[in-house]
Amino acid sequence: MAGSPRRTAGQRLQLPLLCLLLQGATAILFAVFVRYNHETDAALWHWHNHSNADNEFYFRYPSFQDVHTMIFVGFGFLMVFLQRYGFSSVGFTFLLAAFALQWSTLVQGFFHSFHGGHIHVGIERDALASSPLSPSPSQSPSMINADFCAGAVLISFGAILGKTGPAQLLLMALLEVVLFGLNEFVLLSLLGVKDAGGSMTIHAFGAYFGLVLSRVLYRPQLEKSKHRRGSVYHSDLFAMIGTIFLWIFWPSFNSAPTMLGDGQHRTALNTYYSLTASTLSTFALSALVGRDGRLDMVHIQNAALAGGVVVGTSAEMMLTPFGALAAGFLAGTVSTLGYKFFTPILESKFKVQDTCGVHNLHGMPGVLGALLGVLVAGLATHEAYGDGLESVFPLLAKGQRSAKSQAMHQLFGLFVTLIFASVGGSLGGLLLRLPFLDSPPDSQCYEDQIYWEVPGEHEDLAQGPLRAEEPETQA
Amino acid sequence: MAGSPRRTAGQRLQLPLLCLLLQGATAILFAVFVRYNHETDAALWHWHNHSNADNEFYFRYPSFQDVHTMIFVGFGFLMVFLQRYGFSSVGFTFLLAAFALQWSTLVQGFFHSFHGGHIHVGIERDALASSPLSPSPSQSPSMINADFCAGAVLISFGAILGKTGPAQLLLMALLEVVLFGLNEFVLLSLLGVKDAGGSMTIHAFGAYFGLVLSRVLYRPQLEKSKHRRGSVYHSDLFAMIGTIFLWIFWPSFNSAPTMLGDGQHRTALNTYYSLTASTLSTFALSALVGRDGRLDMVHIQNAALAGGVVVGTSAEMMLTPFGALAAGFLAGTVSTLGYKFFTPILESKFKVQDTCGVHNLHGMPGVLGALLGVLVAGLATHEAYGDGLESVFPLLAKGQRSAKSQAMHQLFGLFVTLIFASVGGSLGGLLLRLPFLDSPPDSQCYEDQIYWEVPGEHEDLAQGPLRAEEPETQA
Amino acid sequence: MAGSPRRTAGQRLQLPLLCLLLQGATAILFAVFVRYNHETDAALWHWHNHSNADNEFYFRYPSFQDVHTMIFVGFGFLMVFLQRYGFSSVGFTFLLAAFALQWSTLVQGFFHSFHGGHIHVGIERDALASSPLSPSPSQSPSMINADFCAGAVLISFGAILGKTGPAQLLLMALLEVVLFGLNEFVLLSLLGVKDAGGSMTIHAFGAYFGLVLSRVLYRPQLEKSKHRRGSVYHSDLFAMIGTIFLWIFWPSFNSAPTMLGDGQHRTALNTYYSLTASTLSTFALSALVGRDGRLDMVHIQNAALAGGVVVGTSAEMMLTPFGALAAGFLAGTVSTLGYKFFTPILESKFKVQDTCGVHNLHGMPGVLGALLGVLVAGLATHEAYGDGLESVFPLLAKGQRSAKSQAMHQLFGLFVTLIFASVGGSLGGLLLRLPFLDSPPDSQCYEDQIYWEVPGEHEDLAQGPLRAEEPETQA
Repeated sequence: MAGSPRRTAGQRLQLPLLCLLLQGATAILFAVFVRYNHETDAALWHWHNHSNADNEFYFRYPSFQDVHTMIFVGFGFLMVFLQRYGFSSVGFTFLLAAFALQWSTLVQGFFHSFHGGHIHVGIERDALASSPLSPSPSQSPSMINADFCAGAVLISFGAILGKTGPAQLLLMALLEVVLFGLNEFVLLSLLGVKDAGGSMTIHAFGAYFGLVLSRVLYRPQLEKSKHRRGSVYHSDLFAMIGTIFLWIFWPSFNSAPTMLGDGQHRTALNTYYSLTASTLSTFALSALVGRDGRLDMVHIQNAALAGGVVVGTSAEMMLTPFGALAAGFLAGTVSTLGYKFFTPILESKFKVQDTCGVHNLHGMPGVLGALLGVLVAGLATHEAYGDGLESVFPLLAKGQRSAKSQAMHQLFGLFVTLIFASVGGSLGGLLLRLPFLDSPPDSQCYEDQIYWEVPGEHEDLAQGPLRAEEPETQA
Repeated sequence: MAGSPRRTAGQRLQLPLLCLLLQGATAILFAVFVRYNHETDAALWHWHNHSNADNEFYFRYPSFQDVHTMIFVGFGFLMVFLQRYGFSSVGFTFLLAAFALQWSTLVQGFFHSFHGGHIHVGIERDALASSPLSPSPSQSPSMINADFCAGAVLISFGAILGKTGPAQLLLMALLEVVLFGLNEFVLLSLLGVKDAGGSMTIHAFGAYFGLVLSRVLYRPQLEKSKHRRGSVYHSDLFAMIGTIFLWIFWPSFNSAPTMLGDGQHRTALNTYYSLTASTLSTFALSALVGRDGRLDMVHIQNAALAGGVVVGTSAEMMLTPFGALAAGFLAGTVSTLGYKFFTPILESKFKVQDTCGVHNLHGMPGVLGALLGVLVAGLATHEAYGDGLESVFPLLAKGQRSAKSQAMHQLFGLFVTLIFASVGGSLGGLLLRLPFLDSPPDSQCYEDQIYWEVPGEHEDLAQGPLRAEEPETQA
Repeated sequence: MAGSPRRTAGQRLQLPLLCLLLQGATAILFAVFVRYNHETDAALWHWHNHSNADNEFYFRYPSFQDVHTMIFVGFGFLMVFLQRYGFSSVGFTFLLAAFALQWSTLVQGFFHSFHGGHIHVGIERDALASSPLSPSPSQSPSMINADFCAGAVLISFGAILGKTGPAQLLLMALLEVVLFGLNEFVLLSLLGVKDAGGSMTIHAFGAYFGLVLSRVLYRPQLEKSKHRRGSVYHSDLFAMIGTIFLWIFWPSFNSAPTMLGDGQHRTALNTYYSLTASTLSTFALSALVGRDGRLDMVHIQNAALAGGVVVGTSAEMMLTPFGALAAGFLAGTVSTLGYKFFTPILESKFKVQDTCGVHNLHGMPGVLGALLGVLVAGLATHEAYGDGLESVFPLLAKGQRSAKSQAMHQLFGLFVTLIFASVGGSLGGLLLRLPFLDSPPDSQCYEDQIYWEVPGEHEDLAQGPLRAEEPETQA
C-alpha cells in the first residue's frame, strides 16, 4: 500500500483493546444490573395472567424493526457516498451502533428505570417506570430508545466522517451516550417536554455535538485529502440505498415511541406527508441553484430527508396534514440552501468541517422542528384534542400547565439541548485530541486503507473478465 | 462534459418551477380539504372510546411499510440496470412517487370519501366512506392506496425510462393519477369489481398507459443512444436489489387492502406460492431460449416477478395453493418469452419503445391476472367460501349477483381499464410532446448527465487508490 | 467470451429441464395434497366465528417478512462478495430458495400435519396439527418454516459456492430439504428438543451438510481459479447489504416460531443483545489478528453475525441479558479466529474447500449454540419460569421430564443432527458427482460467464461517459 504510513503497535492495539474493555465492562454491568421486564420475563408475564396478544411486542416490534433498519442500513449506507471510505462508513456505523445499543441500555436505565437495584429491559418502557411528570413511553430503557441514542451518535459521526479513527469514535460514543441520556432525562422527565421523534434530543443534539467536536478537531491542512472527499458514480448509488431506507421508514421512527392508538397513527401520517413535501422542495431548489440547472446528488441524498427531522417534535400533535406539508417544504428548502451556500462558509469562516453536512440535515431542521413544536404546542386546545389531550399533553389535560406554558417549556428544552450538545461536543473534542490516540494524518483522511484490508483495485472488473494469468487478489 | 448540449434557461427552469407550482397547489388543496380521519384525529378517536389496540394502524401498518419499500426501493432500484441512468432511475422514481402520493390523496379523496366538504385521511379507508355497492377497503383515500397509485405511475415510467425529462414525467404523473383514480372508481365502486392487488387497476392500467404514451413519443432515431441502453456488471447487481425487495414484499402488496382476517392471510399465501413458481419457470425459460444456454439477467430481474402480478385480482379469492402455482408458472413463462421474442417486435413493428419491458412484466401478466380473476370469480360458490363469501364477494353473498354475473363484471372491468389506459396514454403523449417541454435529444437518452451533476469518472476507483496529485472531484 | 468452454446441448438443457420437472412435480403434489388451513380458508375461518384480529397473520406476518428478507436479501447479497460471481450468488440463491419453499411445504407437511390425506398451509402451524409430545409451533408446515428450511439449503450452498452448476444445486436442495424435514421431525416431535432459532436444525445441519458435501466434491486443482476467489471494493459493499439485513432481522428469525407473548419478546431481546456483543468481539479480534492491525471485511461480513446463530436454541429460554452478551462475545471470537486460522487448515488438512466459511459462521457457532441450549435447559427451574414453563418446556411443566433429562435430550439432538448432516452431505456429494451433471471446470470456478450473459466489461463506466461511437453492449 503505497503512501499509507504504518501505524505503531500502540496505535494498532487501541481499537481491539478498547473494544474488549468496553465489552467487558458492559457485560459486567449487565450481569449486575440488567433484568428482563414484565413483558419479557417468563414468570412475571405469566404471573399477571395476561393475554399474549397484549404483549407490547405486537404493538412496537414492527416499528422497532423499521428504526433498526434506519440505524444500520440507512445511516450506514448514506455515508458510503465517499469514494474511498465505504468500508469505514458502513463498518464503523456497525461498530459504533452496536456499542451504543448496549451502553445506552445501561445509561438510560440508570436515569429512567432504576428500581430495586435493577434495570428492566424490553422493547418498550417498563410500565412501572414512568415518572409522574411525564408518562411518555419514550423515557425508559428499551430497544427502541437504545436505537434512538445510536442514531444521535451516528449523526455526530457524520460531521467528523473520515477524519477520526475507530478508537476515537468509540470514545466519542462512550461520552455522547451519557450526555444524550442526561439531556433526554432533563427534557422528558424534568421539564415535561414532548419530543417523540427527537427533533431536539436526537437531531439537534447529535448535530451540534458533532459540529462542535469537529470544530475542536479542526484540520487546517485537510485539503491534502480533498481529492478523496467526493463521490464516484457507484458510491452515490450505494448512498441512495441509505437515503431511501431512511425516507421510507421515517414515519416509523417518529411514531415508534408515541402513545398507542391515534397518536402513533397520526405521527406516521404526518411524517409521511412532510417527507413528500421536502422531497419536492429539494428537487426544486437543487435544480434552481445547480450549475446549468442540474440536480446534485448530495441534496437529493440528504435534504429530501429533512421533512422527517422537522416534524420530529410535532408529528404526534394535531399538526394537520397541511401543516405537515408546509413544514416539510420549508425543511427541504432550508436544507438544500444550507448545502449549497452555508456549508462552505461553515468551513471557511467558522472552521467547522462537516463531512456529511449534518448541520443541513439534522442541525437546522432539528432546530426548526423544535420551534415548530413550540408553535403547535402553544396552539393546543381541548377542542382540538378532546380526550386525546391526556395522551399528547398530559400536564395540560390535568390542568397543571397552560398551552403557553407548555410552549415555553418546549423552547427551554431546545435551549438546554443546545447547551448539552455544545458542552458535550467540546469535551468530546478535547478527549479525542489526546495525543496518543490513533488518528489519520491530514493526507490520509477519507481513506479506508488505514484501517481496512482493501482488495487490490488493479484486479477490478473494469479490466475485463477471465484473466487466468493474474495473481491472487485476496488471501 | 463533452457532448452534452447546454439547455436554455427556459428548459432549466421547467423542473424547479413545476415542482414549486405542484407543491404549492397540493398544499393549498390540503389546507382546504384534507383532515384527519377517525383513526388519526385525537378528539374523534377518543370520543368513540376505542381500545387503542383496535386502531387500524396495527393491522395495516406492517403491510403498508412493505408496499412503501416496494415503491421506493423496489421500483427505484429495479430501473438502475441502465449503465448511465442510475441517478435518474432512482432519483426520478423518488420525485414522481413523492408527488403522486400527495396528488392521489386528493384525487382519490374526491372520488371516494368526500364528505362534508372534506377528505379524511389515514392509513386505510375511513370506515364511514364505503360505497353501498362495494365495501372493499381498497376504494378510499389512504396511504396504502396513494402508494398503489404511485406504483402505476412508476410502471408507466418504466416504459419511457431514459427518454423523457423530469418535468415531462411530473406532467405525466399529474394526468395519470387522475385517470388512475377515475378508473379505480369506475371498477371498484360502480362496477363492484374485485381487484385487491391491482392486476387491472395498477398493472394493466400502468403498463398500457405507458406503452401508448411511449408510442406517441416514438423516436425513430433512438439508436443514437443504444450504446447506453445496456447494463454493466454492477448496475445489474443494483437492479437485483430492486427485484428481490419487490419479490419478497409482493405478498404484502396484494394483501395490503383486503378484508382483515382470513382474506389478508390467504392473499399473502397465494402470492407467496405464485412467485416461487414464476421464479422457477423464468429460470427454465431463460436458459432454454438463451444463447448457449445462458441465463439473462433481464429475465431474472423482471419475469420472475410476474407471479405477483398475475394473482393480483384472484389472490384474495379461493384460488387454491395449486392454482397459485399454476398461475405463477404461466406468468413467468409468458413474461420471459415476451422479453425474448415480443419486445423486439413491439419496437420494430408497433413502434413502441419499451425500455424496461413493462409489457412483459405488467401488461401481459396484468391482463392474464384479470382473466384469472374472471375465472375464479365465476367459479365462486357458497360451499367454497361459507360465511366468508360476504368479505370477498359481498354482492354474491347478498344475492344481488350470481357468480357468472360477477365474472362478467370482472371482464368488463378489464375492458374499461384498457380503454382508460389507452385514452390516457394518448393524452399523456400529446401533453408530453408540447414543443417547449425539455426533453433529451435522441443522442442523449439513457444519460444522467443532462439532469444530474455526475462525479468525474476519471476519478474512479479502478485507477487505483491514493492519487494525491489529482484535482478535486466534487465541490 | 474467451476462455470459457462451450457446454454441450445435454449440459445446457439440464437446468431448464430440471426446473420444469421439479415445478411440474410439486404442482401436481400441491394439487393432490395441499389445502388452506383454518386461518386461510374462507369457509373454515368464518365457520369458527373468530374475530379477525385473532388471525395468526397479525402475530406472525411481520416476523415472517423479516425472515423472508434475510433469506433472499441477506443470504443472497452476503455471497456477492466474490468479484466475478455476483449474478450467480444472488441469482442461484433466488432459484434455490424459491424451489425449497415449495418442496419443504410438502416435505414438512407430510412429516407434521398430514391429516385426512391433506396438508394444511398457512403462515404458521395448523392449530390441530401439534404433536402431543411437542406443541411447539415450529414443527408444522408453514411459510415461516419453509423459509427456515431454505435457510439451511443456502448455508450449504455457501460451502460450495462457485464450484457447482445450478442443476447440481437444485438436486442438492431436493435431497437436503427431505433430510432437513426428517431431522427436524426427529428432534422436535420425537425427542421433544427445543430449537426455535435453529442452532441445530438450521445452522449446524446446513453447515455440516454443506461441508461434508464439499469434501466429497474436493477439487485438488481449484487454485486454477483462485484469482477469482477474492473480492473487489464494490463487491464487498454489496456483501455488506447482506450482512446488515441479516444482522438487523436476526431477532425476528429466532423469535418467528416461538410461543406468543413473553416468549417471542424475550427471544428477540436476547438475540438483539447477543448480536451487539458478537459485533464488538469480531472487530476486536479482526484487528488483533489482522496484518498491520487492519480489519478484514470477511470477518465483519460474517463473524459479526455469529451472535445470532449462537443463541438460536437458548434465546427463548431465560438466558438473561448478560448470558446473551456473553454468548455473543464468545461466538464472535470463535468465528473470527476460525476464519483466520482454521479455514486454511480445513482446506489443506481436511480437504474441505469452504468458500464462504460456513464452518465459522454456522458450524462452530451452531454447535456452541446447541451446547448453550443444553446448559440453559439443564438450569431451568419452576422459580425462574413460573407459569411460563409450560410454554418453553412443556414436558418439564407436566412433570414428564426433569431439567437434566431435557438437557440430555438437547445434547442427543445435536448428535442426531450431526449424523443426519454428515450422512446427508455424503449422499449429496455422491449425487452431485454423477458424471453427466454439468459442473464448472477447475479453471472456471467462481465465474458467472458459464451460466449467465454478462455485459461486456469494456463498456464499464470507468472509461468515461458519453462514448457515442461505441457498439451496443447488450441486445
